[in-house]
Amino acid sequence: MAAASTPSSTVAHAPDSIGPKAQPHDVNEQTAIDMKRFRARCTFDIAKMHNMIDEGSRDTEMRQKVHDIIANDALITEAKRTRPFLSRADRLYTGQALMKRLFDLVDEHDLDYMEFLECLFLVDEQTSYYLHHVAFLPVINAQGSDEQQAEWMAKAQNHAWLGCYLQTELGHGSNVRRLETTATFCKDTDEFEIHSPSLTATKWWIGGLGVVSTHGVVQAQLIIDGTNHGPHLFLVQLRDIQNHKLLPGIIAGEIGPKAHGGFAALDNGYARFNHVRIPRFNMLARFSQVTREGNFIKPPSDKLSFGGMVFIRAQMISAVSMSLTKATTIATRYLHVRRQFADPEAKGERAEEELNVIFYPSVYMRLLPLIAKSYVFGAMGKDMAELYGTMASQLASGNTEMLAEVHAVSSGLKSYVTAEVVEGIEIARRSLGGHGFMESAGVARIYSKELPSVTYEGDNYVLAQQTCRGGLKTYRGLLKDASKRKLLTASTDYLAHLADKKQIKLPHSIEEWRNLQVQTDLLDARAAFHVKRLEILMRSKAEGGQGKTMGQLSWQCQMISKAIVESFIGRRVAAALAPEGLLVNGLDDAGVKVIKNLMNFYLLNTIDGALSELLEFGVIPAHSTDSGAMQSPIETLRLAIANAAQEVLPETIGLTDAFGFSDWDLNSALGRYDGRCYEDLLHRAESQAELNLGGKIKDIFEKSIKPVLERGDRLAKL
Amino acid sequence: MAAASTPSSTVAHAPDSIGPKAQPHDVNEQTAIDMKRFRARCTFDIAKMHNMIDEGSRDTEMRQKVHDIIANDALITEAKRTRPFLSRADRLYTGQALMKRLFDLVDEHDLDYMEFLECLFLVDEQTSYYLHHVAFLPVINAQGSDEQQAEWMAKAQNHAWLGCYLQTELGHGSNVRRLETTATFCKDTDEFEIHSPSLTATKWWIGGLGVVSTHGVVQAQLIIDGTNHGPHLFLVQLRDIQNHKLLPGIIAGEIGPKAHGGFAALDNGYARFNHVRIPRFNMLARFSQVTREGNFIKPPSDKLSFGGMVFIRAQMISAVSMSLTKATTIATRYLHVRRQFADPEAKGERAEEELNVIFYPSVYMRLLPLIAKSYVFGAMGKDMAELYGTMASQLASGNTEMLAEVHAVSSGLKSYVTAEVVEGIEIARRSLGGHGFMESAGVARIYSKELPSVTYEGDNYVLAQQTCRGGLKTYRGLLKDASKRKLLTASTDYLAHLADKKQIKLPHSIEEWRNLQVQTDLLDARAAFHVKRLEILMRSKAEGGQGKTMGQLSWQCQMISKAIVESFIGRRVAAALAPEGLLVNGLDDAGVKVIKNLMNFYLLNTIDGALSELLEFGVIPAHSTDSGAMQSPIETLRLAIANAAQEVLPETIGLTDAFGFSDWDLNSALGRYDGRCYEDLLHRAESQAELNLGGKIKDIFEKSIKPVLERGDRLAKL
Ligand SMILES: Cc1cc2nc3c(=O)[nH]c(=O)nc-3n(C[C@H](O)[C@H](O)[C@H](O)COP(=O)(O)OP(=O)(O)OC[C@H]3O[C@@H](n4cnc5c(N)ncnc54)[C@H](O)[C@@H]3O)c2cc1C
Ligand SMILES: Cc1cc2nc3c(=O)[nH]c(=O)nc-3n(C[C@H](O)[C@H](O)[C@H](O)COP(=O)(O)OP(=O)(O)OC[C@H]3O[C@@H](n4cnc5c(N)ncnc54)[C@H](O)[C@@H]3O)c2cc1C
Repeated sequence: MAAASTPSSTVAHAPDSIGPKAQPHDVNEQTAIDMKRFRARCTFDIAKMHNMIDEGSRDTEMRQKVHDIIANDALITEAKRTRPFLSRADRLYTGQALMKRLFDLVDEHDLDYMEFLECLFLVDEQTSYYLHHVAFLPVINAQGSDEQQAEWMAKAQNHAWLGCYLQTELGHGSNVRRLETTATFCKDTDEFEIHSPSLTATKWWIGGLGVVSTHGVVQAQLIIDGTNHGPHLFLVQLRDIQNHKLLPGIIAGEIGPKAHGGFAALDNGYARFNHVRIPRFNMLARFSQVTREGNFIKPPSDKLSFGGMVFIRAQMISAVSMSLTKATTIATRYLHVRRQFADPEAKGERAEEELNVIFYPSVYMRLLPLIAKSYVFGAMGKDMAELYGTMASQLASGNTEMLAEVHAVSSGLKSYVTAEVVEGIEIARRSLGGHGFMESAGVARIYSKELPSVTYEGDNYVLAQQTCRGGLKTYRGLLKDASKRKLLTASTDYLAHLADKKQIKLPHSIEEWRNLQVQTDLLDARAAFHVKRLEILMRSKAEGGQGKTMGQLSWQCQMISKAIVESFIGRRVAAALAPEGLLVNGLDDAGVKVIKNLMNFYLLNTIDGALSELLEFGVIPAHSTDSGAMQSPIETLRLAIANAAQEVLPETIGLTDAFGFSDWDLNSALGRYDGRCYEDLLHRAESQAELNLGGKIKDIFEKSIKPVLERGDRLAKL
Repeated sequence: MAAASTPSSTVAHAPDSIGPKAQPHDVNEQTAIDMKRFRARCTFDIAKMHNMIDEGSRDTEMRQKVHDIIANDALITEAKRTRPFLSRADRLYTGQALMKRLFDLVDEHDLDYMEFLECLFLVDEQTSYYLHHVAFLPVINAQGSDEQQAEWMAKAQNHAWLGCYLQTELGHGSNVRRLETTATFCKDTDEFEIHSPSLTATKWWIGGLGVVSTHGVVQAQLIIDGTNHGPHLFLVQLRDIQNHKLLPGIIAGEIGPKAHGGFAALDNGYARFNHVRIPRFNMLARFSQVTREGNFIKPPSDKLSFGGMVFIRAQMISAVSMSLTKATTIATRYLHVRRQFADPEAKGERAEEELNVIFYPSVYMRLLPLIAKSYVFGAMGKDMAELYGTMASQLASGNTEMLAEVHAVSSGLKSYVTAEVVEGIEIARRSLGGHGFMESAGVARIYSKELPSVTYEGDNYVLAQQTCRGGLKTYRGLLKDASKRKLLTASTDYLAHLADKKQIKLPHSIEEWRNLQVQTDLLDARAAFHVKRLEILMRSKAEGGQGKTMGQLSWQCQMISKAIVESFIGRRVAAALAPEGLLVNGLDDAGVKVIKNLMNFYLLNTIDGALSELLEFGVIPAHSTDSGAMQSPIETLRLAIANAAQEVLPETIGLTDAFGFSDWDLNSALGRYDGRCYEDLLHRAESQAELNLGGKIKDIFEKSIKPVLERGDRLAKL
């Protein structure tokens, strides 16, 4: 399969000092020279930028310490190298061996809990331990009563128990209320009986259950005296601690390989329960309880059971955005050293020299939004964590006031950010051309890890309806009573646009387009008009609407929820740019300027993506209405974006260096700090031949190829 | 990681006869019942539809015969089952064993060449043999002289030689003219010397080279007496036929694993040549030659060397569209049997019963476009094959007239169709919710196979510029000389819109939106306005433009080329709907009606995707300009789409059954013909436990889990 014999293309903006000028004969050597020069262009203090990024999300020094321990460990490094060559069984096997090694290191270096978590993150292999810490522990933490926590937490935190979270079943995922597993109260023995009444009640997808977990939190319908009180959580021991055998009445196993070889080291499992008895004490009892007599005590608020889910979603924002920063770093580096095609309009020496592909607009217009989003989503992750923290401490004292808001923000951000991150990682991979399809390029593995994030913790398409419902509810409140205007929260503030009947002064020049207020106003207006239209569509026909239900509008909800989240992010970005804001704190002046330019690009680009809606709602006219203006607002918007791109381009190596990944972290032949990609690609292929072919070449020839050639020879002579 | 506790949603259009009514307690049993009922709704003759699809692309009976041979072979079927569990080395090994087995079957059943190719296709594992037939043979066929073909073809066709196509290098892919490998004419010995002068001259990515190939066609700079005549093709023997050792002076190997475990059974390879001598006869000499004296004879036309590339691209359209039909079939079936959430507005019994998710607009609005595109791209593949055939026979008699047109159409379609197919497969996978992330769902493996098609045979982003260049050239011709209007071809006919200053009568009702002429006119207008704007942007400032070069507009070219190809497809679809057209030939009346409805949906949906451009160009006004009309054209468009969706929905099981895949073909737990997905998922997990865990469970526990638990127990007691 061959390449395109495309005639070369002219390209703009390759400054003399960086451009193709110094390309010597040796394409390989040139990569390191290019990388050095591009890096030198960066105008700001990279260390300060790095601190700004880490601040409030991780401890820079601690990370460095742990990184060095892990990266210098031979077994862990070897496991990283061999991963892509292994069978499913060996991926599982090596994954657990890796975890065992981690604990050795923890003991050897006397690492504390936060350091241990950083290890888990740095090893960058999803195993049962990840689920233990993200799903099992937090659920007990959020939903277990004080006594339960006293009884269980030490064991769980120290890994004397290894846990999983069993919610999803073969037949039910999104619709939790229709789970089939039952937990029936047996008054005579003061126990619950956990049971799977059907094939489709089989728990399925449960991370850690397939091979590892000793315990699990099982979601099941609580049944007392024949009355179903809906799904509740129960701690169930699954395997014997000594011999690891499944306990009586439990049938469980591994569900098998996943898409794209993703999560291959994670033992997602299935389980069926055959009248399994557990003590009454094991129902997670922070909010609902069952008394000895079988009386059901309701939770003070229905929403309380969302607590755990909100935690997982909240931490996902940071985690997935970190993946985008990785993919983006790799792409940024390679695209600066890859050269392809000379400028056909260049003269003399330069007509001979090929351009770094980063200079092609169809390359950088794919890359720059990813760099911008990496910064934006990172800040959103911190925002979210802070919001969650405040809510959690309020909840501890029984105050549920913030729950609805945190739930709305976390589910809106979860669905938007995961979708954008997954798409962004693939845009990064594709931008690398053919070499991006190498495993050793290092981007595809990031993709397959994040891909299911669009589905778990709530399918994004289903979540979109929730986001819209939230907006709609507030808007209807405003329609009835305008004084509710003052109750608007961060997640609904865009509706102020309608309430205040704001007029947006349309920009007519690049400078006017740069106005942060105008930018966020436009995104607010778009979201607000969407909700307004939604409300009209749902009105009865008698009231001039179309009498639609939310379910009938689930397709429209996709676009509307995107608009709502983008307006939210727009306002949060503006706040993060204020003095001491999340995105500028501690930076030097040059750094602040670069971040502001980057955010200007981000917001303008987001507006460009919203253009069809802004046109349709009449917020922006298709053509200039101002007879004095030479260009339409759309034309000046495009110029403003092109302009913003040029401002950001010289800083891209610095902006991605600032994420602070080591070559060990990235493990990418293309994303090397020093730019030496070609020799790395070749070196990997040559040095891993044995691993890759497993000494089978001779066998392949003797058993399969030779007979075919001999047959062919016979036939060719006929 | 748990699911969303989403409140359920109301949904429309679940007809009584199909809706949730008959859902019994057993969710598993219900799947088969649902599937039967949905299948029974279909109004047309599925066999006739199947024939229409096969007609002109494959022989239905032959395929069935070959299918049965392959599907009944134990070794092949077992290889299919074990694939996802294997290591890289075993994938390669099994892949070649599979090929050997294929030849046994060919001999056993006395299959002819076409039947052999069908086997290769059905086995559905990319190996070196695929490249041999798609890249190596066709290149010799197109570029080899008659003598060369007489000498080589019998060996190549019968697999006495196994070949590959060596174009891409580490340092150069898209820019073929800058390949570094040289072929220097040595007059004294009447030979060429093939040489890799640098590390980056290493051939890379070459399918079949890593382990299997004995021969390759190498692209290298032809150098005679110090003069470089540009890249030419040379047949080079790589390995000894008897012992399969690399020949002297050749260093070659396997490049290693690829993204997402894709192409794991294919041995992509690298190679460096150290002054390797080949006879002068081995330069492919149909169009250029080097005489004994070292005189270079130029080809009659520069474009002739594109011939081979056009073939590969032309056949890709059919191949990738077949992958979309597979993914779409799987998704369609599962989405009809998966039920989730009851209609909250339903009363009585139905309030208890969950809806098949296909009834949710946010589900079917993702699925229906995929079904439509499956039909459209299939037809485009046939169109393309016919066009190629005509050109090939003209070329044989020295007529190069059609080359430019076929080149334009094939590269435009290649970039558009591959991008849409890859995106479509992932949309299908994601629509399945969590279960779609199972390997056994069968969709992810289709994705990883087609993913690189957006990059090879010309990176789509680079191809887009070619498509725009073609449009621009014709448009400039028209500007200079309006009489060129009559020279417009199928690929440039949309420009007639500008030449004729067409007025489009805007639709104001669902019925008016259904008008095929209006639909294609709108798509034409959008493409034409894009090219017009491109031309203005490229004009010098003095002439009122912005003086941009094509390279500076490479980002804009992405959108423009999409518009051009969509207008082309629109017109081809209209032609295919005419009596005896490609899409309706041989159908019963009901079938014709269904296809027309499907294409109506397709075109309207495509127009919806083009809305922001149509608004910006003023082709469609944002708001109604006709004071009599109640609704704006956009509003009626949306109603027309919703309406079209309802027309197509009852036919979707039939429309996908008509693709004719067997359960063996699909190998999907979710895409089963009978709908019994849950038991299949579970059965696979249970029956493949050994394969999946490789008997390592005990080891994992003893070596890795037990020490961690014991350590945890110690710590928990502190
Ligand atoms: C890698 C991975 C790990 C996981 N780990 C765990 C785990 O550890 N523990 C655990 O309990 N679970 C786990 N899960 C399960 C996960 O939480 C669910 O798969 C997820 O919540 C989606 O639910 P579902 O599969 O039922 O999708 P479904 O709801 O069946 O979705 C199918 C389709 O129907 C659509 N749909 C459904 N309802 C509606 C509606 N009301 N309106 C419109 N459209 C609708 C969806 O959008 C989707 O297109 C995991 C899943 C994956 C992929
Ligand atoms: C699975 C697979 C199999 C393959 N099999 C073979 C084979 O059998 N034989 C063989 O010879 N080759 C093979 N190839 C190589 C393939 O043909 C090339 O990778 C492909 O043509 C892309 O070229 P590249 O890798 O040089 O991309 P590059 O050109 O390096 O692309 C890198 C980036 O630069 C951009 N870019 C490049 N030029 C321009 C420009 N002028 N303007 C704007 N942007 C530009 C691209 O869009 C891309 O984003 C295979 C590749 C793959 C992935």
